[in-house]
This record gives sequence, C-alpha cells and structure tokens, in this order.
Amino acid sequence: MQPKVSIIMGSVSDLKVMEKAAKVLDEFEIPFEMNALSAHRTPDEVERFARGAHSRGIRVIIAAAGMAAHLPGVVAAMTPVPVIGVPINASLDGVDALLAIVQMPPGIPVATVGIDGAHNAALLAVQMLSVGDDLLYQRFETFKKNLKLKIVDANKQLSEVKFKFKVN
Amino acid sequence: MQPKVSIIMGSVSDLKVMEKAAKVLDEFEIPFEMNALSAHRTPDEVERFARGAHSRGIRVIIAAAGMAAHLPGVVAAMTPVPVIGVPINASLDGVDALLAIVQMPPGIPVATVGIDGAHNAALLAVQMLSVGDDLLYQRFETFKKNLKLKIVDANKQLSEVKFKFKVN
Amino acid sequence: MQPKVSIIMGSVSDLKVMEKAAKVLDEFEIPFEMNALSAHRTPDEVERFARGAHSRGIRVIIAAAGMAAHLPGVVAAMTPVPVIGVPINASLDGVDALLAIVQMPPGIPVATVGIDGAHNAALLAVQMLSVGDDLLYQRFETFKKNLKLKIVDANKQLSEVKFKFKVN
Amino acid sequence: MQPKVSIIMGSVSDLKVMEKAAKVLDEFEIPFEMNALSAHRTPDEVERFARGAHSRGIRVIIAAAGMAAHLPGVVAAMTPVPVIGVPINASLDGVDALLAIVQMPPGIPVATVGIDGAHNAALLAVQMLSVGDDLLYQRFETFKKNLKLKIVDANKQLSEVKFKFKVN
Amino acid sequence: MQPKVSIIMGSVSDLKVMEKAAKVLDEFEIPFEMNALSAHRTPDEVERFARGAHSRGIRVIIAAAGMAAHLPGVVAAMTPVPVIGVPINASLDGVDALLAIVQMPPGIPVATVGIDGAHNAALLAVQMLSVGDDLLYQRFETFKKNLKLKIVDANKQLSEVKFKFKVN
Amino acid sequence: MQPKVSIIMGSVSDLKVMEKAAKVLDEFEIPFEMNALSAHRTPDEVERFARGAHSRGIRVIIAAAGMAAHLPGVVAAMTPVPVIGVPINASLDGVDALLAIVQMPPGIPVATVGIDGAHNAALLAVQMLSVGDDLLYQRFETFKKNLKLKIVDANKQLSEVKFKFKVN
Amino acid sequence: MQPKVSIIMGSVSDLKVMEKAAKVLDEFEIPFEMNALSAHRTPDEVERFARGAHSRGIRVIIAAAGMAAHLPGVVAAMTPVPVIGVPINASLDGVDALLAIVQMPPGIPVATVGIDGAHNAALLAVQMLSVGDDLLYQRFETFKKNLKLKIVDANKQLSEVKFKFKVN
Amino acid sequence: MQPKVSIIMGSVSDLKVMEKAAKVLDEFEIPFEMNALSAHRTPDEVERFARGAHSRGIRVIIAAAGMAAHLPGVVAAMTPVPVIGVPINASLDGVDALLAIVQMPPGIPVATVGIDGAHNAALLAVQMLSVGDDLLYQRFETFKKNLKLKIVDANKQLSEVKFKFKVN
Repeated sequence: MQPKVSIIMGSVSDLKVMEKAAKVLDEFEIPFEMNALSAHRTPDEVERFARGAHSRGIRVIIAAAGMAAHLPGVVAAMTPVPVIGVPINASLDGVDALLAIVQMPPGIPVATVGIDGAHNAALLAVQMLSVGDDLLYQRFETFKKNLKLKIVDANKQLSEVKFKFKVN
Repeated sequence: MQPKVSIIMGSVSDLKVMEKAAKVLDEFEIPFEMNALSAHRTPDEVERFARGAHSRGIRVIIAAAGMAAHLPGVVAAMTPVPVIGVPINASLDGVDALLAIVQMPPGIPVATVGIDGAHNAALLAVQMLSVGDDLLYQRFETFKKNLKLKIVDANKQLSEVKFKFKVN
Repeated sequence: MQPKVSIIMGSVSDLKVMEKAAKVLDEFEIPFEMNALSAHRTPDEVERFARGAHSRGIRVIIAAAGMAAHLPGVVAAMTPVPVIGVPINASLDGVDALLAIVQMPPGIPVATVGIDGAHNAALLAVQMLSVGDDLLYQRFETFKKNLKLKIVDANKQLSEVKFKFKVN
Repeated sequence: MQPKVSIIMGSVSDLKVMEKAAKVLDEFEIPFEMNALSAHRTPDEVERFARGAHSRGIRVIIAAAGMAAHLPGVVAAMTPVPVIGVPINASLDGVDALLAIVQMPPGIPVATVGIDGAHNAALLAVQMLSVGDDLLYQRFETFKKNLKLKIVDANKQLSEVKFKFKVN
Repeated sequence: MQPKVSIIMGSVSDLKVMEKAAKVLDEFEIPFEMNALSAHRTPDEVERFARGAHSRGIRVIIAAAGMAAHLPGVVAAMTPVPVIGVPINASLDGVDALLAIVQMPPGIPVATVGIDGAHNAALLAVQMLSVGDDLLYQRFETFKKNLKLKIVDANKQLSEVKFKFKVN
Repeated sequence: MQPKVSIIMGSVSDLKVMEKAAKVLDEFEIPFEMNALSAHRTPDEVERFARGAHSRGIRVIIAAAGMAAHLPGVVAAMTPVPVIGVPINASLDGVDALLAIVQMPPGIPVATVGIDGAHNAALLAVQMLSVGDDLLYQRFETFKKNLKLKIVDANKQLSEVKFKFKVN
Repeated sequence: MQPKVSIIMGSVSDLKVMEKAAKVLDEFEIPFEMNALSAHRTPDEVERFARGAHSRGIRVIIAAAGMAAHLPGVVAAMTPVPVIGVPINASLDGVDALLAIVQMPPGIPVATVGIDGAHNAALLAVQMLSVGDDLLYQRFETFKKNLKLKIVDANKQLSEVKFKFKVN
Repeated sequence: MQPKVSIIMGSVSDLKVMEKAAKVLDEFEIPFEMNALSAHRTPDEVERFARGAHSRGIRVIIAAAGMAAHLPGVVAAMTPVPVIGVPINASLDGVDALLAIVQMPPGIPVATVGIDGAHNAALLAVQMLSVGDDLLYQRFETFKKNLKLKIVDANKQLSEVKFKFKVN
C-alpha cells in the first residue's frame, strides 16, 4: 500500500494535534504516512522528502508547524504537490504560526487552515484527492450530509434545558 | 405561548455562556426558544429558520458563534428581523469571532455585543422589544435603576477593608 | 414632526461618516435629529439628552465616537432607550473605538456595528423601530430584496471582463 | 468550453485584486468563470451556485471576500468542491477577513491564502486540479522552475548597484 | 483626617488588584478613601463624586476599570482633579481596558499606568502630591533609592546558582 | 524666569507633535523648556538632565518617544519628578511606543497619555502643578468649562446640515 | 577564569527562563557571569556594568527583560559590545517586551531573539564569539549537525503510532 | 577583496530599505556582497549560498524578507555563520515578517532587528565582526560617541523654536 497523503510535523509534541488528521484519513481509508521533519534542524531531509514526494505517490502534503512556522512554505517551495499548512499554537495563541504560514509571497501558495486545524486539514486533503476521484467525491458528499447529526444531537440536549419562559 | 426571541447557537458547548441570556429573558417573562443551528453544518435549517422566524412571531434573534463566526451574519442576511450577535471565545480570546460578527458589509447589520456577552445580548433584546411595548419599557427602566444595588453591595464590602490611612 | 431616532457624535469631523446614517433614515422617511455631544466635554448636556430622550419621542439612539469612545456607553448607562454604537476610525484603524464601545460590562449593552459603519447603524435603527411597526417591517423587507441589485450590477460589469479562458 | 474553476467575489471593487487570479488561469489555459455573489445580499444565488457547481463541471472554487468575510465559508458549507479563500484588505489591513476565512470550525475547511493573495489562489487551484491530471502537474512543475528567473533578474539589477566596498 | 487620594473601582473583584495601591498609600501615610463607583451602573453617584471631590480635599483620583473601561475618562471629564487610570485585565489580556483609558480625546487627559498597575498608580499619586509638598518629595526620593534593594537580593540569589563555567 | 515643566523628545521630527504641548503651556503661562535627549544616543545627557531637574525647578517632565520608546521610563528611573510619557507614532501606528511607555514595572510609573497625545500631556502637567497651586487649579477649572464651546460650534454646523426628515 | 558572556536580567523570576542560556554556555565551556540589573531600579549599576564590560573581557551581553523591557536597549546604548535581547513573557504574551526590545531606533541595534528565547540567545552568543574563534566555530558546526538527532527521535516515536491506513 | 558580510534579500524592491545597510558597511570599510535569494523561488541557490558562505570568507549574513519571511531562518538552518534578520514591511505593517523571523524554534537563532531596520542590521554586523577585531571595535566605539551629534543638531533646531513662556 503506497501512501497518498503525507503528514509532516516538526516535533512529536505536535502529534496530539495532528492525530486528528490521521483519524480523518483513516476514516476515509486513504493510505498516509507520518514523519517528523524540521525546516531548521533537518533541511537536507526536508529537501529529500519534498523532491521525492510525487514520485513516491504522495498527492497532498499536510505540514504542521508552530512559532516562526517555516516548514509548510519551505516544502511548498520544493515540490509541485499541493501543501496544506496547519498553524500550531505553540506561542502567541498561534498567531505567529498563522501569519508565517498564510502570508506566502506570490508563486508559492500554502493552503492554510485554522490554528490547530488538523481535522480540517485532512478533510481538505480528501477534497483535493477527490478532484480526480469521483468515488471519493461521493464519499465526501455523504460525509458532509452527516455533519448535521452533531447539530441534531445538540438540539436534543438543548430541548432538555428548562426555563420557565422557554417554549421549545 | 409563542416565542418572541430566538436564541440560536452552533454547539451545545456554547450553552454555558448562552444560558445567561435565557435567565434574563426568563426574568423579564419574555417567551423564547433555544436552538442549535450551524451556518456550516446545517445551512438548509438555517435558511428555513431565518425565512420563517417572523411569521412564527420571532421579533429578535440572538445568535452566538465562535471562531470564524458566520451564523449571526448569515441569519441577518435572510430575515428582516434584527439579529444580535454574541462572539464566543473559542480561540484567540474571541477576537476572531468579534471581527467576524461586527465587521458586516453595508446592508446587513448585526447588533454586536461584547465577547461572551450573552447577558447583555438578552438585555438588548428586551430593549428592542420595548421599542413598541411601553409596559416592557417601564420594566426595563426599573431594572436599570436596580443596577446600582450591585455597587451598593460593593461599597459595603469595601467599607470593611481596613488600612491605617484609609478614611472611609 | 417629532424625531424618532437621534444621531449623536462627538465632533463635526465625524459627520462625513455619519451622514450615511442620515441618508438611510431619510430614505425610510423616519424623522431624526443630529446633535454633537461629548461624554468628556459636555457631560451635563449628555445627561440632559439621555434622561430626556424617551419623553421627547426618541426610540433609538445612534452614537458615534472615536478613540477611547465613551459616548455610546455613557448614554446607554443613562437611558433605557436602545443605543447603537458606531466606532469611528480616528486612530489605530478604529480598533480602540471598537473595543471601547463593544466590550461593555454586564447590564449596559451597546448594539455595536462595524468600524465607520454608519450606514448599517441606521438600518439597525430601522429594524429596531420595525419591531413594533408592521408597515416599517414590510418596507425593510422590500429594502432587503433590493440589496441583490448591487450584485446584479456587479455581474454585468464582470461579464464584460475578457480573458481568453474565461467562459462566462 | 465548460469552466473548471469558478472565481466568485462580493463586489466589483474586488476585481482589481482578483484579476490576478484570472491571469494565472488564463496562462495555464484552464477554463474558468467569474461571478459576483454575496453571502449577505444574495444568499439564494449563493446556494444555487454552490449546489450546482460540481454538476456544471466546477472542480475548484476561489472565493474572495473582505471584512466579516463569510462568502468562502458559506459556499464551502454547501458543496463538497474544495474552496480557496482570498481575504481582501477592505479594513483593518485585512486581518478581519483573514480570521473570518481561516478560522473555520471542524468539518468545513477553507484553503486560505494570504491577504489579497489572488495570484496564489489561482496557483493553488492549478495544483488541486493537477492532483488528477498528470499533464497539468508537469506544466505546474515547469512553472515552478521558472520562478527563479525573477531572482535572476533581481540579481542583475543588484549587480549594478555600486558601493565602494561592495565586492560583487 | 481628610482623605487626599480617592481610589475608585467598578467592582469588588477589582479589589485584589487595587489593594496594592492602598498599601503604597498606607506606607507613605497618605490618607485615602476607597469607593465602588460605576460609570454605567451609578452615573449619578459618579457625577456627585467627581463634582465634590476637590472641595472634600481630594487632590488625586485613582480610577480602576476593566473591559470598555469608561470610569477614569468619565470622572476626568467632570473634575479638574488629576485622574490616574488603571486598566484592569478582565478580558483580552487588558488591552481593551488600556485602549479605552489611554486614548482620550484632546482636552481630557487620563494619566494611564500599566495593565493591573495599581502599585504604580499609587506611586504616581504620591509623586503628584509631592509637586506641592517638599517633605513628601524627599520621602519619595528615599523610596526610590531603596528600590535597588530588590536587585541586591536578586543578585544574592543569583550568586548561589552554580554552573561549571559560571564565574561569579 | 525658571522653567517648571521640561519637554524632552528624541528627535526634531517629534516637534510637529510636541509643539501642541508647548502651546498649551504658553496658554497657561507656565514657563517651560524644550530639549532633545535620547535614552540611546545621549545616555549621559539624559542622566545629567534627570538628576538635576528638580534642583533647577522642574516639577513635571513631559517625555516623548517613538518605537521602542525608552526615554520616559529611563528618565522616570532617575528622578522623583513625575514623568508624563507621550507615545509617538513612528511605526506600527504607535502601538510599540505605547506599550514600551505604559507597561512599566512596579516602582517606576510613567503617566502615559494617548498616542501623539501632546496636547493632553501638557494639560496633565498643568493638573499636576495645580495640586499645590490653587490659583492654577481655578484657571484649569475655567479651561474645562470652555471645552464645551467646541461642541457648541459643532452643533451650529450640524444644524445647517439639511435632510428631508431631519427635524433639528 | 574571566567571563566572556554576561547574562543580565531584571528579576530572579526571570531565572527559570534564563537558566537555559546558562546551560548552553556551560555545554560550550564558555565562561560567563549572571547578574541582576534593572534599567529602572539600578540605573547607576547598569551604567557601571555597561561601561566596564569590555575591559573586563565581556564580548557578548545577553539581556532579558519583560513588560516595557528597557534593559537591553539601555545597555546597548552604553557599550559597543553586542547585546542580545530576550523578551520575557511577563504580560500580554510577551508582545510588549518583544516590541520594546526589537524596535530600537537607528544607531543602537539589539539582536533580538524570540519570546522567552534564552536557549537561542546563548547559541547566538556562541555564534558571535565564533566570528573570531575558528575552534569555537567548528564546535558550533558540530552542534548544528546534532540538531537532527531530535528529529530522528521524533520519527522513532511517530513510527510507533498505529493507524489502519498509516503506511510507515 | 573578499566579502565579509553578505546582504541577501528576496526582491529588488527590498533594495530601497537595504541600501541603508550597504551604506553603513561602506562607511566602516567592510567588504560586502549583495545578492537576491528566495527561500521559496530559489531553494537550491539558497542552500548553495548558505553551505558555502563560511569558506568564501563570509562571517555575518544579513537577510531581509517580508510577509511570511522565511529566508533568514532557512539560511540560519544551513550555516553556523550568524544571521541577522531584517523584517521588511510588505504587509500588515511588517508584523507578519517580524514574527516569522524572530520566533525561531530552539536551536536556530536569528538575530532580529526592528521592522525595516537595515541600518541597525549593518551596525550589528559590525559589532559581531568586532568581537574578534579590536581595531574595528575601537572604530565602532568612536561611531557610538558621534551618535550624540544628531541630538546636538536637534537641540540647535529646538532652541530656535520660540514660545512666549519657553525659557531656553
């Protein structure tokens, strides 16, 4: 089984955020890999990874980083494979990571999701893969329809809250 | 009993903030309803809710949302009923929600209150209802007069604080 | 003709923003007044204004202020009439005014609109008045339907933009 | 010719930013369409657009919006087609739009690019399309290689700058 | 004993910050009073307080407030007695209170200290009082000389920290 | 004539802001001096200035600085004379200067006014001097009463603005 | 043994951050000293320290400070020895300290590292010392090569995380 | 003549800021080079540059970048030569670039100067070079002494400003 999505992160401490991405990919039965890579500590590995990603079958890269978060942009510079950036809240509520990921110069986009947004990063990866995969598109369509179930549950709970002048 | 105010929120986790709004409406004996709705997860329900609100007797809508808080603005786009927006602090101290609610484009105002300001949202709803209801206006007037009691209590407590050169 | 809405502002320099509110009220044929008042320079006048507003027929107050914008909150403290706050961009892109208006303590809400949002403030005033006025509600409903015309115009202009691979 | 990418924006004033996206798509010979749509002024049109996008052949949506920028998120809520969000600097240096686009709740990702980042949005669209299109992937690869030419030019200009102790 | 300094605050919850101010005044043997006052809940009391402060012997007012912190500015508008503003961190790390206190319009200054800076507020009050009181000036001068003792203590502690290559 | 107030600034470019302070002192007939001093370029002069200020008759110091604005705090550290800090907008809208002036550690207050708030700084200096000078206090009281004239003027101008439904 | 690097800080409470700097210097066997100094509480000591640093053999100064962090800039003003500034998070997530350290006016640079970045400050000191010391340069080169070990460890841990569709 | 300092920047548009650095190095007669390099457009060139810098005689690197400014950190990751980072104001007042440069993770410091601080970056380079060069140290010491001349000039200009109550 060859991985189609690669999740990379700078530190094991990012795992508690990024495992949400892994769960989503598992649910959609999309083969993936997880690696620790650092734009600053292992620039050579980053380059080798980025240069070889496409030929190894990787079609989407999810890159998580905190603080002066360079990993997503550096990888995006080295491969035509689309890169999804996840700003990790490691300082300043994650604002430094968000700006360091999203404000890329013309020519090298990074598809940025919200701070600690690993769950959404994986869904976006699924959406990208479904551009050329109608079956996956249909499965994602079904997933979206099920999103409302969370709201149905919420309404059940709200209906049990009692106030004198609450009507429903 | 037909509800006059509708409190909507995206998630049950917002309830711990929004129940302060319910308490205020209860205190003013204004019939209300509470529903979970999500601009993103249940767009159809949101539309049905917004389109039908006025004919069901709803005169003010209180909409709470966090992060990229779209619910208040989306509902305001679909009904002439005034919408009060409550930014929920779910990330970035609530600054993202505040900006996503208050900075509406010309044509679609949302009456925004402070971050996690559910209590004030309900009072504002009472004020809006009292525009066409003199009796309610008088009750709100009385409520305002009683606000000073909290300060009277505070002064009692401060008077018990002892310092050598404190005179009162 | 007795005014129903009162537009107050701290300085004539705010007029270039606030005249957008006046235009909206004119369009809806709602009698209004405009006054300069300052929470800091004329506290007595502010109090006289706020205490007497309701008995003079004022049902909604629109208060604009910049910097450490106290006017909306101070007026809201002195009258049960609902107050709409307009943060004026006089420094710091208007962020100081926004926070000084929206972050009111429990008990005294100010219905805040966006920075320099005079147009929306007046629309919100119309919505508040329409809570007890079905005819006005219907006119506001019609106004909302017409909002889409701006988009129709925009699409006409966009249709004239030519690119080789642009289809529509 | 059926469009594959749809560029939507809330106002004609966004065109001066978004035409950079059109130029990129033209350069890559990808058929596209441009439409004005507003989450707030034309919610019905937005829904019709979003629901029908995929069956009309749209594979990527680029949505631009300023201020409390709801359009990208609202469209993303209504279609499984991936949505790229472009925060437009219409106020607060674009920070309000950035947060209102990127901070989406779990379940509905928006692939956010930098403020006024229309050029990068289109490149990201090309990358997404190339996930299932090897030929396009190769053309994008070539495009990336040419990015360095801008730097070669820059170095020529720098080499002409003369300082006494400047060596190159 | 007539108070010379008046410490006012909007809520008893501010006391845990403001008692640092009381301690400083006690140490300098300056008679003071402490009162709860709210620009929003007790505007009449605020006015009575401000108008009468000077004739009751008050020469400096220390006003603490959080969120949309209006109390210092409102009091400053009503009395020529100098007002020291203390922004209380009640939300947004105190940034809202800081801006709402310091960004006063021309004509009504508030002498603002740091967020939760009650200790410094009292020292500033002592400095203001010492403008017309040479004896107090000398005592403040002595106080300043003693500030270095804290650093002497710190150095003792640092000298006990052992590292192999630490020389002192 | 011995100066009572000293206005110091880091650069002649600050003069266009700080001359507003000079005008206020002139109006109140308070002898003052103006000097350029830099915490970074002339630390020795700063120390000499600060150490000798009181014995030369200086009772209040107004210190203006931009960017990493150290001058007010450094002077405050070296003299018991109260220091009023004016954050100059030289970068980042003046936010850097505001924080670098107002956020002083316990022991060394700086009485901070708003960004570019030279006018208010001088008024605050007058208020501080009036703590021990009843005549000056009365003149400041008169000044405050005249503040409302600006509002009277504003109202005249507003009364000339004509709208169909404007009543006053 | 004469110290080459001097670590200064305003308070013992900064030690828990700054001891990371000491550990790095120890590891590189660079003699150093640690002292408490305050730009505000001990300006004389600061001057004596700064003026004498070079002649005592100090070649790099690491200065830590929080809030309105003046120490690094004030020391940099008084000595040609390069100063590394460490913003300490004592309020506002350290943003106030960062701006007060990094935004120095032309003429007096402070080499600023990240918030609470004591570890990096010491590494930067090593790099500065190695400018004139080839042996130290080689040791730093070796240190950099070892940085990747942390990533190797991280990858080992990641390889143990099991998901159904995780390939590596 | 072999360059000792290398100034790198991502775009010719940065030259108008960075030529201030060149002027300083020229004044100190330090041989330098200027090159355009982009972490994103020419990652290979960046690597070649960084790996070879030391052996070509480069002892300090000055790297300027705007937006999601990765260049300084990426170069610092690839060479033990100290890197000075200059955040360029290309968007968001330069805050994005500042955070993307200064907030480096442990192990890879970048010596950050203020936004657009090219002048200070070059001075810092001179200071670093003078760590192992006593002659240069003395020249920098002289330079620092001359900084006060700017203040002397400023005072001359201030002495010509006339106010009735201005004493000096």
